[in-house]
Amino acid sequence: MKIGLNSDMGEGFGHYRIADDDGLMEVVSSANIACGFHAGDPQIMARMVQLAKARNVDIGVHAGFADMVAFGRRTIPLEPDEVVQQVLYQTGALQAIAAAQGCRLAHFSFHAAMGYMAAFDAVIADKVMRAIKVLDPTLLIYGMPDTEVERAATRLGFETVNLVFADRAYQDDGFLVSRKLPGAVLHDANDVIARVNQFMDDGTVTTVNNKRIKINATSFLVHSDTPGSAALAKLVHDTIVKGGGEVVPPSSMR
Amino acid sequence: MKIGLNSDMGEGFGHYRIADDDGLMEVVSSANIACGFHAGDPQIMARMVQLAKARNVDIGVHAGFADMVAFGRRTIPLEPDEVVQQVLYQTGALQAIAAAQGCRLAHFSFHAAMGYMAAFDAVIADKVMRAIKVLDPTLLIYGMPDTEVERAATRLGFETVNLVFADRAYQDDGFLVSRKLPGAVLHDANDVIARVNQFMDDGTVTTVNNKRIKINATSFLVHSDTPGSAALAKLVHDTIVKGGGEVVPPSSMR
Amino acid sequence: MKIGLNSDMGEGFGHYRIADDDGLMEVVSSANIACGFHAGDPQIMARMVQLAKARNVDIGVHAGFADMVAFGRRTIPLEPDEVVQQVLYQTGALQAIAAAQGCRLAHFSFHAAMGYMAAFDAVIADKVMRAIKVLDPTLLIYGMPDTEVERAATRLGFETVNLVFADRAYQDDGFLVSRKLPGAVLHDANDVIARVNQFMDDGTVTTVNNKRIKINATSFLVHSDTPGSAALAKLVHDTIVKGGGEVVPPSSMR
Amino acid sequence: MKIGLNSDMGEGFGHYRIADDDGLMEVVSSANIACGFHAGDPQIMARMVQLAKARNVDIGVHAGFADMVAFGRRTIPLEPDEVVQQVLYQTGALQAIAAAQGCRLAHFSFHAAMGYMAAFDAVIADKVMRAIKVLDPTLLIYGMPDTEVERAATRLGFETVNLVFADRAYQDDGFLVSRKLPGAVLHDANDVIARVNQFMDDGTVTTVNNKRIKINATSFLVHSDTPGSAALAKLVHDTIVKGGGEVVPPSSMR
Repeated sequence: MKIGLNSDMGEGFGHYRIADDDGLMEVVSSANIACGFHAGDPQIMARMVQLAKARNVDIGVHAGFADMVAFGRRTIPLEPDEVVQQVLYQTGALQAIAAAQGCRLAHFSFHAAMGYMAAFDAVIADKVMRAIKVLDPTLLIYGMPDTEVERAATRLGFETVNLVFADRAYQDDGFLVSRKLPGAVLHDANDVIARVNQFMDDGTVTTVNNKRIKINATSFLVHSDTPGSAALAKLVHDTIVKGGGEVVPPSSMR
Repeated sequence: MKIGLNSDMGEGFGHYRIADDDGLMEVVSSANIACGFHAGDPQIMARMVQLAKARNVDIGVHAGFADMVAFGRRTIPLEPDEVVQQVLYQTGALQAIAAAQGCRLAHFSFHAAMGYMAAFDAVIADKVMRAIKVLDPTLLIYGMPDTEVERAATRLGFETVNLVFADRAYQDDGFLVSRKLPGAVLHDANDVIARVNQFMDDGTVTTVNNKRIKINATSFLVHSDTPGSAALAKLVHDTIVKGGGEVVPPSSMR
Repeated sequence: MKIGLNSDMGEGFGHYRIADDDGLMEVVSSANIACGFHAGDPQIMARMVQLAKARNVDIGVHAGFADMVAFGRRTIPLEPDEVVQQVLYQTGALQAIAAAQGCRLAHFSFHAAMGYMAAFDAVIADKVMRAIKVLDPTLLIYGMPDTEVERAATRLGFETVNLVFADRAYQDDGFLVSRKLPGAVLHDANDVIARVNQFMDDGTVTTVNNKRIKINATSFLVHSDTPGSAALAKLVHDTIVKGGGEVVPPSSMR
Repeated sequence: MKIGLNSDMGEGFGHYRIADDDGLMEVVSSANIACGFHAGDPQIMARMVQLAKARNVDIGVHAGFADMVAFGRRTIPLEPDEVVQQVLYQTGALQAIAAAQGCRLAHFSFHAAMGYMAAFDAVIADKVMRAIKVLDPTLLIYGMPDTEVERAATRLGFETVNLVFADRAYQDDGFLVSRKLPGAVLHDANDVIARVNQFMDDGTVTTVNNKRIKINATSFLVHSDTPGSAALAKLVHDTIVKGGGEVVPPSSMR
């Protein structure tokens, strides 16, 4: 079984870094690159492209709100067209930095609060996906299943890549348990291993209420900003391989 | 005689505006659009593209330092590769915003302090021009004649568009009189008219020492941040037309 | 009758300016100075202090969200303590710049979205007023009557200065007609003159429903970011004087 | 022998952190707090004040250029008055945040590139020290010996606290070996211990040329942004104590 392993990369700014991007890049098969709005700067973006290229890792935009101080996690009340232009700006910026190194983007992904906004706002989801389609209709659209973004992307002919979380607790409805609640993040390596093995086995995850639910996903996601994210990603990677799976870039599965 | 009329556009930020962009756009034939570093933001960029498209005005990148508070006018000591990535970032951002409106960039131009840095630094000029060539080798490279940027651009096969200033005093060596010196800016409409007519007539300007020097240029430049820039641009435009010339986008003269 | 005339000042950033601060400073008796969050920078703040000092104008903090691109007009979802620290930061910054010129702040005022948040959130209003009290319990607290800010300020022993708008339409409940509705701003000089004369006469304003309501206020406010604000402020000033009133700094009325 | 132990604190921004501020605060006796220009934000500043207060650590301003992306390490070409206003702004902001917690600043210190600029520019050093004197003439002025800042501070009647570096190589002239050169930073714990013991013993350090030079200093400085700075600071602290010294806040030595 082939599956992707995806993480958020380049989440830094000047001298600051959130995660061990080098360590993560050793094991992931696709990278969502921060584009200077919620995190990232041109130098960091260029370095992420370089690392990804050297290891044949898919690269994609991680589009967020222009809100560096809050890491893109606050809802900024923008008009739909403002979201569109901010997404275009970030996507174009990364396309150019990638192009100069002979690389193309493989995917598009929303970050944090902008992602929630688009997931539940059909107008924003539609307008952004239409704009992205003009830029590059071959981009894979990453996200959670059953959102306005997935619906708009599918309607417009994009291929989508749904993500399954290796380290987050699920509700029965397939959405994540809020980080504000206890038990939202799986901290125990055994829990992560069990999650990965179960998903590899039958495509399900077990929810906080002990129900097995089907998750329609083709890539694991590891959040880079949890402490020890590189080790966690390596654990997910090795569990997949040990279980007979293969970690591959989503673009290779088309 | 066909000639371009170029100005810096979209020099604003949120609620702020430097110039009357709408008025300028009525008369220019090409627009250098600020890309969010020294000025500009995604909304303003999108609006500039929209205005330019409606009037068939060439659009290009105006790449500057990430130094909003100083309007890109301070030298920021960057490594050559940092300049390259910042230029790529800005160019890609505008390319994407333009593409979503069905437009392509026609040219590339440096702003202020980044322009001076590149004009006199052969390494930076070469590296930036090489990067831009990967993005789009058909871009016209705007600038002053006889700079490292012009040399690098020419060597790499770009077409260049040199600019002649409608409202600035010239030294005998063809460079501008520093803004710090008296008389650096022509404030009198008659002086501007005389400048335009003389250049249209024989391709020369008269320097502060009363010498006539040849300027190898195909477009007038009006700085948008001088007070009354829209009226000044209209004066230049009307003087050209009255003298039997035609204001055309540089891309149409290829 | 003595009354204040207040405006928002120093709303700029680097090369940008919203209003004609010099013109406004000729006629106002108190200035709310932007402190680098929603607008303003150290240079501009220092210049505002200098101008105010020369004309004996009261100076005060205009505290807003750190959201330059949106001019402090978007609600930023902050915790109460975050608002407190941001207000302290801005207030201290201006206190120091003023102190270096031998000046003291006379008042405190909220700007835009932060002001709305505090006006209707008793916890934030209370916490901010307590923090300000530690800094300087003699500050006058400017605001609209009948808000949580006024209540907290009064409870803590501050003197308050309520504002009456010279150029905005009022609802029957004493709040302003939203800018999103037609007629929210009085554009006609005669309307402004009538408003000023009526308020000077009997302390009332006439609402959009043609009701006369009492406004408990001791200073007129002119928004600096409406076009022609300096001329408007002069009109208010001259109308007051012509009607036999006197424009004085609120600090002189204690 | 009583001596200070000083470090740069609160060097973060939003979700970002450079150092283990909690660990550092356990062992230092004075903290230079970043004030939102090169690093820091109101929340972080407030937390640093709180930690310092709980442990009786002196707090002071760490004033730098408004250049978050480069961590204040690039020279920004400002006019002297611009430096003055930026320093006042930062100092006032911290004074207010400290005052709200019942604390007073004990000292003033420059950060990085702004520090170099002031150290060698007598006009800037003089103007800044004069402005600081108006704010609080009791502040201790931290710095390197034999700079324009020290001279200006002394001339204006400030007490100064000179710093000796626990982990940096010295030139024979008492200045530091540039970080760009090999051996600039002492990485070996034994070297640090030897440095501390020697300085405690006879007030000297041994230079890269093996000369013993006298350093007129009353506090050790540990840079917080070197990896493992908290452990290094603890090593310095414990070495001082083991050698019979006492780590005390410089304000207590007056």
